Amino acid sequence: MGLPGSGRLVICGFGLIGGSIAAGVRETGMAGTLIGVDADPAVLDEARRAGLLDGAGWPHDLGPDDLVLIAVPTLSVASILETLWDGERGLLAGGAVVSDVASVKQPVLDAALAICGRLPANLVPGHPIAGSERSGVGAARADLFRDHRVILTPVAETAPAARQRVAELWQGLGAEVVDMAVDDHDRVLAMTSHLPHLLAFALVDTLGRVPEHEAVFRFAAGGFRDFTRIASSDPVMWSDIFTANAAAVGQVLDRLDAELAELRGLLEAGDRDGLRTIFARAKALRDAHVQTRHGNDHE
Amino acid sequence: MGLPGSGRLVICGFGLIGGSIAAGVRETGMAGTLIGVDADPAVLDEARRAGLLDGAGWPHDLGPDDLVLIAVPTLSVASILETLWDGERGLLAGGAVVSDVASVKQPVLDAALAICGRLPANLVPGHPIAGSERSGVGAARADLFRDHRVILTPVAETAPAARQRVAELWQGLGAEVVDMAVDDHDRVLAMTSHLPHLLAFALVDTLGRVPEHEAVFRFAAGGFRDFTRIASSDPVMWSDIFTANAAAVGQVLDRLDAELAELRGLLEAGDRDGLRTIFARAKALRDAHVQTRHGNDHE
Repeated sequence: MGLPGSGRLVICGFGLIGGSIAAGVRETGMAGTLIGVDADPAVLDEARRAGLLDGAGWPHDLGPDDLVLIAVPTLSVASILETLWDGERGLLAGGAVVSDVASVKQPVLDAALAICGRLPANLVPGHPIAGSERSGVGAARADLFRDHRVILTPVAETAPAARQRVAELWQGLGAEVVDMAVDDHDRVLAMTSHLPHLLAFALVDTLGRVPEHEAVFRFAAGGFRDFTRIASSDPVMWSDIFTANAAAVGQVLDRLDAELAELRGLLEAGDRDGLRTIFARAKALRDAHVQTRHGNDHE
Repeated sequence: MGLPGSGRLVICGFGLIGGSIAAGVRETGMAGTLIGVDADPAVLDEARRAGLLDGAGWPHDLGPDDLVLIAVPTLSVASILETLWDGERGLLAGGAVVSDVASVKQPVLDAALAICGRLPANLVPGHPIAGSERSGVGAARADLFRDHRVILTPVAETAPAARQRVAELWQGLGAEVVDMAVDDHDRVLAMTSHLPHLLAFALVDTLGRVPEHEAVFRFAAGGFRDFTRIASSDPVMWSDIFTANAAAVGQVLDRLDAELAELRGLLEAGDRDGLRTIFARAKALRDAHVQTRHGNDHE
């Protein structure tokens, strides 16, 4: 399978996601030239040593056969779009297809509209539902996206051919591509991903503040380890996500607060049957919906 | 290694924990006779077919060489103690060593005091920090306790020889035995185990109540699956635990509520640096304390 368009794949931001895209392109034998862009020269050196780069730095002649993937933290996408749109190189004007991997989509569209004055037809917002609590190109895996979903959020302005180019890249890496409306994406991800991360960070930080925190962590077992795995995620990536999706996260946090208040009432009343009813409902939901997932999912 | 005391091991409650103790005794070649007691005859049949039983039902001649392990949900321990203490058989009078595996220890001691009028010297409260979101003897594993901690909470009345017998059983199954004060145990477990379970149940039930819950569960990835694994735990066991440890859970829930309120304030203020500071602190804590745990811990 050829790299869609047979042109260059320019990956801006060579962290876990960018590095895994490059590793997947290499492993699947998709032809094409891999170009890396990263603010940190040491990252590009590491990627080059791992065999993931054919070149580094923005090409000056980006054209319609090239594909640019912006794989930086959510709130840094705007500065990359500025570089591409109207910097000294004016790179987006050449017609390259541009996509991103940010976990919140509305701010990307807002930034594009503000910077470009319109939503460019060759910009295809995307979000792979895959990841790890580990970060950096050193954690990259060629199979990170295999059997995972990638959500694209094309808008009315998006050129179907541009969307297709991006979809084919992800499908070549083994992912299933699904289209969603921007606000649906941001609201659903607030529930399935952002709120669990907030709770995991909150729980670990809460326990770190109790006087007996040494004993607490010493007696934590597997349930705690799995529950808090996502609290080892990258703080920069996640502070960006919560800042970018604060409203949707706040809404589902309201719902969770109400549920916790209900549970607290049952606790204080010693209402064992009431607790059991809620626990049984949650167990049935999870057993029905979550156990059937693929084996190596991370986000 | 012989079964401590070379007498019978009577396991009352043949679920995940009771069954795993029996399987471990078989696999490690500890000698001794395994007797099962369970309210459900089908459970004993399953245990017998799995080769985990030499006999069933309370022996009428329990004596000082016998060891009784009560492995029923926390709030059912009292009724077993009643049977042992003063039922038609008066079994505890024979001097058998009795232990339990309940996740909350104060109610076990309260029940013993109420039923026996004093804390019996041959009663050794215990709690293995191991388990699974799966339940029942069908989920039993001989290695469930290997490299895990077992907390014993002996009191002033507890005979050292009785404690030693119980400790040797667990050590024979590969566990590390640690003594703790009862209230320390219940407070620490409220933080490391009970509160995470409450949050997992609460999150899944919250998301089950939103109108778009089908889409929500469809797009849940690995972070969500790991975070909510413990929401698939047994509702009866956990409604008992929360009823039994409501005060300690309420106290740490207060702390978590304060932390969530702080995070919500940062969200609403768009304070990316404030969020990053908390996330980085949580990540550092978890990376320092949790990553070094054993590979197959569950609770």
